[in-house]
Amino acid sequence: MTDDRPEASYRDLKAVVLNCTLKPSPEPSHTDGLLRIPIAVFEANGVAVDHVRVLDHDLPPGVQPDMTEHGAATDGWPALFERIIAADICVIGTPLWLGEKSSVCNRLVERLYGNSGQVNERGQWAYYGKAAGCIVTGNEDGAKHAAMNLLYSLQHLGYAIPPQADAAWLGEVGPGPSYLDEGSGGPENDFSNRNATFMAWNLLHLARLLKDAGGFPAHGNQPEAWKRGDSLDFPNPEYR
Amino acid sequence: MTDDRPEASYRDLKAVVLNCTLKPSPEPSHTDGLLRIPIAVFEANGVAVDHVRVLDHDLPPGVQPDMTEHGAATDGWPALFERIIAADICVIGTPLWLGEKSSVCNRLVERLYGNSGQVNERGQWAYYGKAAGCIVTGNEDGAKHAAMNLLYSLQHLGYAIPPQADAAWLGEVGPGPSYLDEGSGGPENDFSNRNATFMAWNLLHLARLLKDAGGFPAHGNQPEAWKRGDSLDFPNPEYR
Amino acid sequence: MTDDRPEASYRDLKAVVLNCTLKPSPEPSHTDGLLRIPIAVFEANGVAVDHVRVLDHDLPPGVQPDMTEHGAATDGWPALFERIIAADICVIGTPLWLGEKSSVCNRLVERLYGNSGQVNERGQWAYYGKAAGCIVTGNEDGAKHAAMNLLYSLQHLGYAIPPQADAAWLGEVGPGPSYLDEGSGGPENDFSNRNATFMAWNLLHLARLLKDAGGFPAHGNQPEAWKRGDSLDFPNPEYR
Amino acid sequence: MTDDRPEASYRDLKAVVLNCTLKPSPEPSHTDGLLRIPIAVFEANGVAVDHVRVLDHDLPPGVQPDMTEHGAATDGWPALFERIIAADICVIGTPLWLGEKSSVCNRLVERLYGNSGQVNERGQWAYYGKAAGCIVTGNEDGAKHAAMNLLYSLQHLGYAIPPQADAAWLGEVGPGPSYLDEGSGGPENDFSNRNATFMAWNLLHLARLLKDAGGFPAHGNQPEAWKRGDSLDFPNPEYR
Repeated sequence: MTDDRPEASYRDLKAVVLNCTLKPSPEPSHTDGLLRIPIAVFEANGVAVDHVRVLDHDLPPGVQPDMTEHGAATDGWPALFERIIAADICVIGTPLWLGEKSSVCNRLVERLYGNSGQVNERGQWAYYGKAAGCIVTGNEDGAKHAAMNLLYSLQHLGYAIPPQADAAWLGEVGPGPSYLDEGSGGPENDFSNRNATFMAWNLLHLARLLKDAGGFPAHGNQPEAWKRGDSLDFPNPEYR
Repeated sequence: MTDDRPEASYRDLKAVVLNCTLKPSPEPSHTDGLLRIPIAVFEANGVAVDHVRVLDHDLPPGVQPDMTEHGAATDGWPALFERIIAADICVIGTPLWLGEKSSVCNRLVERLYGNSGQVNERGQWAYYGKAAGCIVTGNEDGAKHAAMNLLYSLQHLGYAIPPQADAAWLGEVGPGPSYLDEGSGGPENDFSNRNATFMAWNLLHLARLLKDAGGFPAHGNQPEAWKRGDSLDFPNPEYR
Repeated sequence: MTDDRPEASYRDLKAVVLNCTLKPSPEPSHTDGLLRIPIAVFEANGVAVDHVRVLDHDLPPGVQPDMTEHGAATDGWPALFERIIAADICVIGTPLWLGEKSSVCNRLVERLYGNSGQVNERGQWAYYGKAAGCIVTGNEDGAKHAAMNLLYSLQHLGYAIPPQADAAWLGEVGPGPSYLDEGSGGPENDFSNRNATFMAWNLLHLARLLKDAGGFPAHGNQPEAWKRGDSLDFPNPEYR
Repeated sequence: MTDDRPEASYRDLKAVVLNCTLKPSPEPSHTDGLLRIPIAVFEANGVAVDHVRVLDHDLPPGVQPDMTEHGAATDGWPALFERIIAADICVIGTPLWLGEKSSVCNRLVERLYGNSGQVNERGQWAYYGKAAGCIVTGNEDGAKHAAMNLLYSLQHLGYAIPPQADAAWLGEVGPGPSYLDEGSGGPENDFSNRNATFMAWNLLHLARLLKDAGGFPAHGNQPEAWKRGDSLDFPNPEYR
C-alpha cells in the first residue's frame, strides 16, 4: 500500500456533476458544499468537470426525450442530456426532505429514464460505458434510502457503479444546522470527507477501466441481439 | 453489433450464487428457477459456480466475523464467508414477502457486513475487486425495492455493480402462481429471461476487467492511507 | 358479518384526491382510472370530493409555506394547501417510473412538509385529525415501495392511516399496456378493485371516528406542551 | 391546550412491545434503551405491557401459521402470535445495520404475514382493530427507511397507524457510540425523547378510539363480503 500516485492519467475523462438542490442559482447550496470534494479530486486529476444546478434548467414533466413533441412549450432536457451523455462520470447530488431525495432529483431521474430506449453505436443502451455515484446531504436521516434509489436507477439505466459510490453528510437527529451553516461540523466530518474522496477515486478508476476497454464490453447486453434470437448462452432455447 | 463470442475467456473466474429462499433443501425453490439462467450462462463460459442455499447454513444473528467468539454455540458463517470471498462474482437471489427481501437474505447481508472491516492485501476493504448482482422472484410486487437495497449494500461493502445487475420475475398483481408453478408464465417470460441473461454477461464482463486489472485499482480507497493523512487530492487539508 | 350499510353518515366529510400524474389536463391519466374507485365510494356516501390534478397547479420548489416570500414569482401552493387542509380525508395517487413515485408526487410531499410546522387550534401539528391513503398505478413494479414512502410521510406529518390504506394496479412484468389501455386487464382486476374499495371504506371509517372525537385526541402530542416541560409521563425527568 | 390528563382511561388496554435486536437475552440492547419510553408511558397509564425480545423465541423461516406442519421441528410462533393478537397496541423496535432493519425484525414481519389470511369474528383480517408504531435505533442513518417499511407492513396487515407513529435515535454520521453507551447523547436527546413520547400517546389514543368503537368499523373491509359480491358501492358492477 502506497500513496504513490497511480500511473493512469485521467485527463481525457469528463465528469458531469448534477446538483438537485431545491434552491435556484445563485443561492448557496449545502449539497454543493459536499460536492466540492469529488469536484476537487476530479479537477486535481485533470478531469473536465461540468457542474450543473439542475433547477436552473427548464425540465417539464414527462418521460419522452423531447417534451416539446408532446405538448411542452419548451424543454431544456435535450441540451442537458447532451452534456450528461458526453461525460464518462456522472455524480448526482441531492438534499433530503422527509428522508427522501428532492423532487428536482426525481425529475432528473425521470428525464434520464426517458432516453433509456436509445442505444449507443455498439447496440447497448445509451448509458453503458460510464460510471456513476451520488452525494447526499441532509439534516438528520435518509442518506442510504436516497442513495439506494439513485444508484439503483443509474445501474438500471446502464451506468456501472464502483465500490462505495455514495457519500453523505447528515446532521444530528432532530432539527439543526445544515452542511454549510456555522458550526454544523459538516466540512470537518472525517467520515463524510473520506467517503466523498473514496467515491471520487473509485469513479475515476472505473471510468478509466471502461474507457480503456472501449466502453462496457459488448456481448450479451444488446437488445437487438436478444430480439433476433442470438443464443447468448441462455439455457432454455424453447423459451426464446 | 455481432453475435461473435467475445475473445475474452472467463474460465479462471469463480461465481458464488446465494439463494435466500425461506425453504430448506431439498424443497424446490422458485428463486432457484430464475437463478438457473445466470448459472447456465456462467457455466457455459467455463466459470466455476458455487451454488449455495443460505438457509442450509447455520448463521446465528450478529455482526461479528465469528459469532462463536460472542456467545454463539456454533457458526456456519466463517466457512461460508471463505466461499464468498473466494469468488469473483456474487449473485444474491431472494424471494419477496410483503414486497420485501427475505429474512434469510437480510441475515446474509448482516453477516457480510460483519466482515466489512477486513482489508485485502492492497489495503482495500475485503470485497473490493469483485462484481455483484441480484435476482428477485415474487408473486406480484417489490422487485425493484429489494434490488435497490441489495445492490446498495453490495456496493457499500466494496463490490462493483455492472449495468443492469438486477433481474426479476413477478406474477400478476394479486395472489397467483409462483415462478415454477404450472402456468405461471415465469419460465417463458421474455423480459425476465433477457434481463437475467444480460445481468450474467455484465457480471462476467466486469469481473473480467477487474481481474485483468489485478483487482480494483488501489489508490484513494485504502482506509489506512486516509488515516495516516495521505493527500488523495482532498481539497481542504485544514480539515484533515 | 353483514352487508347492511353502516349506521354512520359520512355526508359531513370532505375528501381531497390528489392525482400526481406527469400528464397535464386534459390528457387522460391512468392513475385517474384507479382513483375513480375511491372517488365513487366517497360520492356514493355523500362525501364532497375535491379531485385535483396536482400538475395543473404551479408549485415552485421549496419547503416554505409561500415561496413568493422566498423569491418565487408565483406560488399556487397556498391556495392548494387550503383545499387540502379543509378535507377530512386525503388520497394521493401516483404513477410509477423506474419503480418510484412521480416527481410531481415528490414535489407535493415537499410542499405538504413545508407547512408541517403549523399547529391547529388544539396545538397539534396541522395535519392531525385527518385520515390518508394512497393509490399507485404502474406498468409492472414498485407499488409497495411508493406506498410505503407516501404513507410514511403522511403519518409523519400528522395524518392517521387506517388499515390497508394503499391500493395498486400493476401490469405484468416487462413493458405492456397501462391501466386504461385496451386489454390491460386493469379495470377488471379483482384484487385491485377490492383493495381500492376497502381503502376507501377504511378512510371513511377512520375519518368518521376522528371527526366524532373532535379531532385526534389532544394530549401527549402538542409540541408546546413538550417544550414547556409538561410531564406527559416521560420516564426520565432528568433528561427534560 | 392544557396539561390536564385526558379523561379517558387506558387501564383495559394491552400493549405488546417487540424488540428485534440481534442480541439474545440477557445482553443489554440499545433498542430497549429507547423502547423504555413508550413502555413507561403505557405503564404510567395502567396499560399491561408484554415486553418481548423476539430473538428469545424460536421462529423458523416460513410464512405459514405453524411451521411444524411444514417440516419445522419446533415453532415458537404460534405461542408468540397469541400474545401479539391479544394486544390492542403493537410496537416494533429494531436496530439498524447497513441502514436496514434487523433480520430478526424481517423474520417477525414474515411470521406476522403468515397469519394474515385469518379473519376476526367480524370477518375482517386478523390484525384489524389494533394500533401500531415503531422505534428505531442506529449508529447513524436509516431510521425513516426502516420505519416506512415497518409501518407499511403493519397497515397492510390490518393495523391502524396513528400520527407520528415512529420515533428514532441515531448517532452522528460515521461510527460512534450506540444509544446506551457512555456519552452517546441518546438518552438526553430531546427530539428522540419527544417523538417516542408522542408516539406512545398517539397509540393510546387510537387504540382507545378503536376499542370504544368495538373494533375497526366493519363494512367495506370483509373479504367474504367482497367475494360474495356485496356492492360496497364499488362503481363498476360489470367488473365484479
